[in-house]
Amino acid sequence: MNIYNICVLKILFFLSLSQANVIKQESDTCQQILGDELIREISSYGNVRDEIFRYVLEGEFKGKTYDELAKFVDKFGARPSGTEVLENSIDYMIELTRAEDINDIVTEELEVPHWTRGEERVTMLQPRVKNLSVLGLGRSVSTPPEGITAEVVIVTDFAELENSREEDIKGKIVIFDPVYTTYGETSVYRSQSATRASAKGAVASLVRSIAPFSIDSPHTGSQSYGQNVTQIPTAAITLEDADLIRRIINRGEKVILKIEMSSSYDTKISRNTIVDLKGRENPDSLVIVSGHIDSWDVGQGAMDDGGGLFVSWAAPVILKRLNLQPRRTVRSIFWTAEEFGLIGAYAYEEKHRDENHNINFIMESDEGTFAPLGLAVAGNQEARCIIAEILKLFESINATTLVEDDSPGSDIAVITRTGIPGASLHNDNERYFWFHHTAGDTMNVEDERELDLGSAFWTTVAYIIADISVDIPR
Amino acid sequence: MNIYNICVLKILFFLSLSQANVIKQESDTCQQILGDELIREISSYGNVRDEIFRYVLEGEFKGKTYDELAKFVDKFGARPSGTEVLENSIDYMIELTRAEDINDIVTEELEVPHWTRGEERVTMLQPRVKNLSVLGLGRSVSTPPEGITAEVVIVTDFAELENSREEDIKGKIVIFDPVYTTYGETSVYRSQSATRASAKGAVASLVRSIAPFSIDSPHTGSQSYGQNVTQIPTAAITLEDADLIRRIINRGEKVILKIEMSSSYDTKISRNTIVDLKGRENPDSLVIVSGHIDSWDVGQGAMDDGGGLFVSWAAPVILKRLNLQPRRTVRSIFWTAEEFGLIGAYAYEEKHRDENHNINFIMESDEGTFAPLGLAVAGNQEARCIIAEILKLFESINATTLVEDDSPGSDIAVITRTGIPGASLHNDNERYFWFHHTAGDTMNVEDERELDLGSAFWTTVAYIIADISVDIPR
Ligand SMILES: [Zn+2]
Ligand SMILES: [Zn+2]
Repeated sequence: MNIYNICVLKILFFLSLSQANVIKQESDTCQQILGDELIREISSYGNVRDEIFRYVLEGEFKGKTYDELAKFVDKFGARPSGTEVLENSIDYMIELTRAEDINDIVTEELEVPHWTRGEERVTMLQPRVKNLSVLGLGRSVSTPPEGITAEVVIVTDFAELENSREEDIKGKIVIFDPVYTTYGETSVYRSQSATRASAKGAVASLVRSIAPFSIDSPHTGSQSYGQNVTQIPTAAITLEDADLIRRIINRGEKVILKIEMSSSYDTKISRNTIVDLKGRENPDSLVIVSGHIDSWDVGQGAMDDGGGLFVSWAAPVILKRLNLQPRRTVRSIFWTAEEFGLIGAYAYEEKHRDENHNINFIMESDEGTFAPLGLAVAGNQEARCIIAEILKLFESINATTLVEDDSPGSDIAVITRTGIPGASLHNDNERYFWFHHTAGDTMNVEDERELDLGSAFWTTVAYIIADISVDIPR
Repeated sequence: MNIYNICVLKILFFLSLSQANVIKQESDTCQQILGDELIREISSYGNVRDEIFRYVLEGEFKGKTYDELAKFVDKFGARPSGTEVLENSIDYMIELTRAEDINDIVTEELEVPHWTRGEERVTMLQPRVKNLSVLGLGRSVSTPPEGITAEVVIVTDFAELENSREEDIKGKIVIFDPVYTTYGETSVYRSQSATRASAKGAVASLVRSIAPFSIDSPHTGSQSYGQNVTQIPTAAITLEDADLIRRIINRGEKVILKIEMSSSYDTKISRNTIVDLKGRENPDSLVIVSGHIDSWDVGQGAMDDGGGLFVSWAAPVILKRLNLQPRRTVRSIFWTAEEFGLIGAYAYEEKHRDENHNINFIMESDEGTFAPLGLAVAGNQEARCIIAEILKLFESINATTLVEDDSPGSDIAVITRTGIPGASLHNDNERYFWFHHTAGDTMNVEDERELDLGSAFWTTVAYIIADISVDIPR
């Protein structure tokens, strides 16, 4: 062991001492809430944990999550909402699951957006000619065939737009150039840009890609038009081009862009896929794991959300293979049409609203499947105490962190906001938004070992919640 | 100060102890070689160093390198060899220099390659349809208008190609998929791919981009055809697509690509630009600083080599502004047509071969202008001892490292290999090859403070070498 390692250990030790105090207090409260018996019961699942981890990390399942994910995304590539390729990929997942002798599979049809990107070209004409790398945003309308040529106004935020005089915006192309803070905070500039700009009379809106890093990488994403505005074309530009145009305008020069975009938009029928590993005692009670199967039309959708799809596929498969049948049902859902606004999740919630009391706990992985760190949990204090106690079983892989989050995940927010407890996979996803919604969302972002850890963790957590003697309280 | 900082200091302290031994020994030898008087003389330049650093980091020049570089690359964008825009950018640099009342400027004409990228499209047809992000390599010929459609053979290295049977390569598209180690080692797969593949009967060659990281980023670069082979089209593909095709082929599936590429190739006249700040005692003796003004045709060429161009432009400008006229002449050279094979440097070396004895020392920055760390130096031991002694003056900015390198830089290798001592800027360029020869080579890679440090360091080093009482020995 070298000096650096010793030091890192020392740092970790000191960090753990200071963190330990906070955890200790929480622990004391949780201990009172849960009682010794439940705590003992939860810790008794160490054996099951070991069995699952051995099987996934060293046994027959080693590397399987990565391999199956790679085969899947290599075969289908991008799987946008409303396309035949998405429906074929759903059929493939059903076959893959049936091949594991899991046959409680149903699909539920729903109407989904089908927006198709056509040719897209944005050219700076003044002060010099330059092509911009762009990606139109979901649901964007086309430009006229001759394109839209106009001067650019660049604003940092909505306030700056609102404070502009109508005549300074009218007939212009607005570029939204927000400072990236978090995705949650900044992505509103993508989803509302066209509506906001149009309301002030702009003829098109461009948005600085919602990302902290770029190699000339445009990031697409969804947007929707408000009710009472003219629908204007809208696209994402790169961080580099946003900064370039900002510098040129700051020097007092005029920027003129020509935007040519085409697309088509209608609706199609797609399906949510529901895979059940029936519970041995209380099959009506559900512990749901989930990810979305649709992706954007660029890249492979390996990260968003191929990884989440496959760790959620793996959970019932691993339990079935190990002959581990918990008390409650473990349900795996492959959501459709997440990218256009949680369309699959809304349909599921509506369809199953009467049986919502059956959902004991709902989990989702849609923020990357890098090394697992724990869970982001919505629920009351008792629910969180139970989950925190379960997470203690993952100390050896450093996945014990419980993040309190009242709206974790994306699709499951539709369910948890009705008061049902749930969690999203908390993972080491620092670079997630470097690749998110770009052509770089491919298997190159994924790591075999981290996917194994994800599958093992996800499966074990789902099993324990589905098997313990108590329901997760609301 | 927190525990982490203390620990880092401790690590640095231990590292410095062990390094100190090596440096101590070198120091002892250098001390004998240089003698106390020269060492004292060199250390007396601390005042000049302080004056230059104050002026560049806190004074009137603060931020100027970044601002002037930004204005330049924003105005011209990419500046490929043989284009009008490159010639205009050369005129601009001459004007910018004259505006500093520096008028010893000459340009020297030479013939340069003029390769123009046309439409480029590579589509996977089997096992499914997918567009690949590609960039044709410099000098690549076009495909026939209908494109080239053929099966893919993928090889890791030249040995694997050589060991293949002729009938397995003939008529195929070869993909070179080398493991990236260093640029120097790996880039041979770009420069020689077409020739090697063609010699075995391939109809086109594609190369995994020479880079350690990618967001679906193809990297262009130069290649040249060997004498006795059919010239076949050649392009760079992304790391992601190389890995995708590798996985598909490993699964026993056949990959068929369609390549459509067009380009034109002729020669034009361009110019090396030579700016002299004449020495006060020995104006014939030259200390050269340099960078290349041409770039690839993608991105802005801000990093490769706008930064090197501008720190080399800054050296005579800063000295002139501070009225610091060294004994010898400080010559700044803006090389042309580096990217197509050091064309400008070869022309300069040939033209000035008879006066090569006048070059006292030659410097180049073409590997990024991130935080300066020191110099990579070619020369005999005495020469290196002098440079090492000069570098001791940059302890406060951690730029004291002397890397022994018998062929530092790119353009200046043409000169140093004739026995002339020289150096390349050693800088904190860990991510250099993430952006190199991509559309992401823009101002976003550059940092104002680091460019200031670069200009101050570069100028001070050049001044001291140009002013000390001894020549740099050969
Ligand atoms: Zn997603
Ligand atoms: Zn270069």
